[in-house]
Amino acid sequence: MIEKLIEKIKKTKAPVVAGLDPMLSYVPKHLLDQSLDAYGETLEGAADAIWQFNKGIIDSIYDLVPAVKPQIAMYEQFGVPGVAAFQKTIDYCHEKGLLVIGDIKRGDIGSTSAAYAAGHLGKVTVGSRQACAFQEDFATVNPYLGTDGIQPFLDVCKEEKKGLFILVKTSNPSSGEFQDQLIDGRPLYEYVGEKVAEWGAQHMGANYSYVGAVVGATYPQVGKAMRKVMPKAFILVPGYGAQGGKGKDLVHYFNEDGLGAIVNSSRGIIAAYKQEAYARFGEAGYADAARQAVLDMIADIDGALQAAK
Amino acid sequence: MIEKLIEKIKKTKAPVVAGLDPMLSYVPKHLLDQSLDAYGETLEGAADAIWQFNKGIIDSIYDLVPAVKPQIAMYEQFGVPGVAAFQKTIDYCHEKGLLVIGDIKRGDIGSTSAAYAAGHLGKVTVGSRQACAFQEDFATVNPYLGTDGIQPFLDVCKEEKKGLFILVKTSNPSSGEFQDQLIDGRPLYEYVGEKVAEWGAQHMGANYSYVGAVVGATYPQVGKAMRKVMPKAFILVPGYGAQGGKGKDLVHYFNEDGLGAIVNSSRGIIAAYKQEAYARFGEAGYADAARQAVLDMIADIDGALQAAK
Repeated sequence: MIEKLIEKIKKTKAPVVAGLDPMLSYVPKHLLDQSLDAYGETLEGAADAIWQFNKGIIDSIYDLVPAVKPQIAMYEQFGVPGVAAFQKTIDYCHEKGLLVIGDIKRGDIGSTSAAYAAGHLGKVTVGSRQACAFQEDFATVNPYLGTDGIQPFLDVCKEEKKGLFILVKTSNPSSGEFQDQLIDGRPLYEYVGEKVAEWGAQHMGANYSYVGAVVGATYPQVGKAMRKVMPKAFILVPGYGAQGGKGKDLVHYFNEDGLGAIVNSSRGIIAAYKQEAYARFGEAGYADAARQAVLDMIADIDGALQAAK
Repeated sequence: MIEKLIEKIKKTKAPVVAGLDPMLSYVPKHLLDQSLDAYGETLEGAADAIWQFNKGIIDSIYDLVPAVKPQIAMYEQFGVPGVAAFQKTIDYCHEKGLLVIGDIKRGDIGSTSAAYAAGHLGKVTVGSRQACAFQEDFATVNPYLGTDGIQPFLDVCKEEKKGLFILVKTSNPSSGEFQDQLIDGRPLYEYVGEKVAEWGAQHMGANYSYVGAVVGATYPQVGKAMRKVMPKAFILVPGYGAQGGKGKDLVHYFNEDGLGAIVNSSRGIIAAYKQEAYARFGEAGYADAARQAVLDMIADIDGALQAAK
């Protein structure tokens, strides 16, 4: 799957992920009304609204980007119907040829981690058959429980040729509370990064590992340092745009081959029409605004990478 | 909710949680066949089987314990039907008067953490109405992202009078990889424990906070140390039984008032009939075996607490 990601990045010339993290407040009134009229002001209505919203975005941008990253929390909050909308979104993205990074940040131990891995990236056995649940291509994983929590994901990834992005340094202001604590003079996230490299060696593609890392765009110096600690890991970079990261901050997240990082923007793309820069598209043009925001983001990152050459 | 938990612990005289972590391999053949006949060898069939299995366990033990702890991974692996079985299990436990600790180990930032909190412990707004999704009473949370990841959960908990158990030191063998790393001579889990005490001060009941911690039964010395670091936090203790913890190891997780800890057993209860000690119950008697295992666990912990007085 890492080969497929690289192939698609090269084809689209866009090391960019669109984060499908829909909030009801992003959904244009005409779409929201349609769903709530059909299903009532219920979890079903909310779930239909975010699915219809997503469909518009996906139809508008699927040819521009290699991958999308639905954040499961935004679906899970609407209970079972919400999780069904998550499933529908994944299936539709696959129909459109997009890779799907499930932003699930799961992390547990032994049979529990194995269950998450089977449900999101693999298969479950039911009687004499195998069945598939969510079928993302990649998943984000929380490392706090150590190798026991990662190994079951790795095992499923090897079997299924799927990939992981492990949280190393997150983009939020308080990420340093624990992640930056110094151990023998080095921050915790560096230890986690070393482990990512170690875990990743178990499951290599041609040049990059199937095991990547999450390092926030808001900490460019960390991105630069971690690039060296995990040379074979793809870095998934959240925090671009709405959280403050810009293309020029991100050049050191990439290797000299122009690969090795993929930058996510969520709000900045899917709620672009709410920004002044894209207000001309209006609510009804939310999907076109998203397309323009993706084009601008690709140009920003490409410009920064060219300038750094 | 912490008051309700304490009241129920006093009433049942059982600081015990039954972990509802069903695997298909635990489900007796007659139940499994029934579900797969009805729904096929599908995710729906699997989800029905674990729900029927749970129902038998709950009916058999609901009068003995204050709370249950369903591990969402075991449901999520069966996709949307699995998550529906999770919801059904929670609702049925509430009907039976049990408190429900959602073992979800979620952890993210800002609006994402807020979405998890709303979906699992609070309400979501849809149009002019509010709707509820899973409605657990407590949830487990991963602290790796720092205060930004916890605050949205705290806000919902204050609003809804619900509670959290934050991962401090997990029960698995590799938990030390990151959690035990020394920072100025003290392990990371101690820093996390201090934060738990700090976060907990924001949301206090009469004697205990609504914010508790997870400390594994497999590290009794850590339990003893953390009891002092977080005197007002209830400690949720996994790792009893199948993972090796015993009552006598756990006395220091409790305060002198006999409260302050609640011990979880999952496999040891729900798959008791597979152990030699309970084999006499047979597959058909799996729920009776679970009841006996709960009674034995209560006696073990009570005996240890009495002996320590």
